[in-house]
Amino acid sequence: MTKAELDILVAQIGEEIFARVSPIAVTASGAASKKGEGLNLPSEVCPGCVQRCAQTCARNTKEILAAGADRVSASERLTKIDPSIAAVIDHTILKPEATRADVVKVCREARQYGFASVCVNPYWVPLVRTELSGSSVKVCSVVGFPLGATSTEAKVAETAAAVRAGAQEIDMVINVGALRSGDHEAVKSDIQQVARVAHSAGAILKTILETALLDDSQKATACTLAKMAGADFVKTSTGFHPAGGASVAAVALMADAVGGRLGIKASGGIRTAEAALAMLDAGATRLGLSGTRAVLDGLG
Amino acid sequence: MTKAELDILVAQIGEEIFARVSPIAVTASGAASKKGEGLNLPSEVCPGCVQRCAQTCARNTKEILAAGADRVSASERLTKIDPSIAAVIDHTILKPEATRADVVKVCREARQYGFASVCVNPYWVPLVRTELSGSSVKVCSVVGFPLGATSTEAKVAETAAAVRAGAQEIDMVINVGALRSGDHEAVKSDIQQVARVAHSAGAILKTILETALLDDSQKATACTLAKMAGADFVKTSTGFHPAGGASVAAVALMADAVGGRLGIKASGGIRTAEAALAMLDAGATRLGLSGTRAVLDGLG
Repeated sequence: MTKAELDILVAQIGEEIFARVSPIAVTASGAASKKGEGLNLPSEVCPGCVQRCAQTCARNTKEILAAGADRVSASERLTKIDPSIAAVIDHTILKPEATRADVVKVCREARQYGFASVCVNPYWVPLVRTELSGSSVKVCSVVGFPLGATSTEAKVAETAAAVRAGAQEIDMVINVGALRSGDHEAVKSDIQQVARVAHSAGAILKTILETALLDDSQKATACTLAKMAGADFVKTSTGFHPAGGASVAAVALMADAVGGRLGIKASGGIRTAEAALAMLDAGATRLGLSGTRAVLDGLG
Repeated sequence: MTKAELDILVAQIGEEIFARVSPIAVTASGAASKKGEGLNLPSEVCPGCVQRCAQTCARNTKEILAAGADRVSASERLTKIDPSIAAVIDHTILKPEATRADVVKVCREARQYGFASVCVNPYWVPLVRTELSGSSVKVCSVVGFPLGATSTEAKVAETAAAVRAGAQEIDMVINVGALRSGDHEAVKSDIQQVARVAHSAGAILKTILETALLDDSQKATACTLAKMAGADFVKTSTGFHPAGGASVAAVALMADAVGGRLGIKASGGIRTAEAALAMLDAGATRLGLSGTRAVLDGLG
């Protein structure tokens, strides 16, 4: 192959990848400025989206920029990742538009790299159970997700159905609105009833606090209630709320609040190796990642 | 090709992608940017947020700007609204951070203006039932919301609990991932089982298609499945997916697909009187609004 042919090939592959990268993935890969002519982007952005970007994307973009120089040759790096890192990752696909093929792909990646679990919506649990059969990767599913504002009865039934279908880990969203209304007994009872169903089937329970919606006092209260109610983990975020995902400060506060008695899962918006390592440093014992590949690239 | 050549190729591809993916400097322009001076906006917005704005906000921004001159003096206008408009509005509060006080306020507004219903997450149904007692405003709740990807068993239990607690209308999200995977029987059965529980309690069922995630053929298929499964309404959107909410085109397609046999609820991102009226013109028979006040202002 000549140099000119190689140049054409490189440009074609670049185009191909670029066409397939979703807007979110583009954000997560943000790097050198002044390009983007081929993007066909509008010249106007409404103030709401400008503010949302500043609140939820700026930190990640900075982290990615810092990591930029190392982010090539992904496939080689993926073969070298530290198994102890893989073993704390919940490889996650929760977007409603995910298809059967998308879920199968995530399961195959999880088997390949030995992740802790595959985390999916309840409808996909039977499929994931089959795909992960014979591996050590756990089946994880979500309950009351992502709003946490359904009835306890619904959460209990959702949990019962999920564990019957093969879920070994349950990530439930606590009742954030009740917590913010001061209805602590309702929050505790909600967790407790779900914990009972999960535990009776041998599954563990992680409780999602959606920390971006809570002040520090509410975060600490939520940790106490989760501990009292018998949860196994506290988890920062759903990854679905525009207010944001995991922060190092929230993880540190939660680790302090549960005093080593519960696991800590950091999730939501963790898109780089640096962010992942910072969460582990702050006390996280599990990571929820949907952009797992980008994080692993940075660890290679 | 030698190993060294391959390494060079991989590096070149990396560079190519790196060069094309970048944060785009943008500024909110026109009237919006003039009004936004006090907002402390950043000078850079990532491509993902630029694209999201183009997809979901541009139309609304235009409508808001066009309607700008009329959007003052809300309290005076609220006393003059057409009761026939009020009677098709589901006054909605579904954000997870909503507190008891927020929900009570929405109920009082609904009684005052005679809206069709108050739409809340299941946890708040008992409170809403009490607050609306003695009025003609219905209690509406959501099921499988907003992802639609939980198990049918969970949706059925959530519906049963909601109608027992007092819900008279159920807005369930269909299984979008199953539809996109071609699993039509699963989508139909999911709706059918929820419809049975709702109807046996005298409640009606609206099925949320999340139209922004479907192509036109999938939208039409979803309408057919909803009709076959016994739903009473098809509804455009949850209002929670970043891909966007109701569009006039989707409402028109849905109205055509159900041929007057089901109601049509437009919801998600309807923030102006002009947008609301356009949805009704296109065939909507119900409107889901969380920014109800702004819409009513424009109708005064």
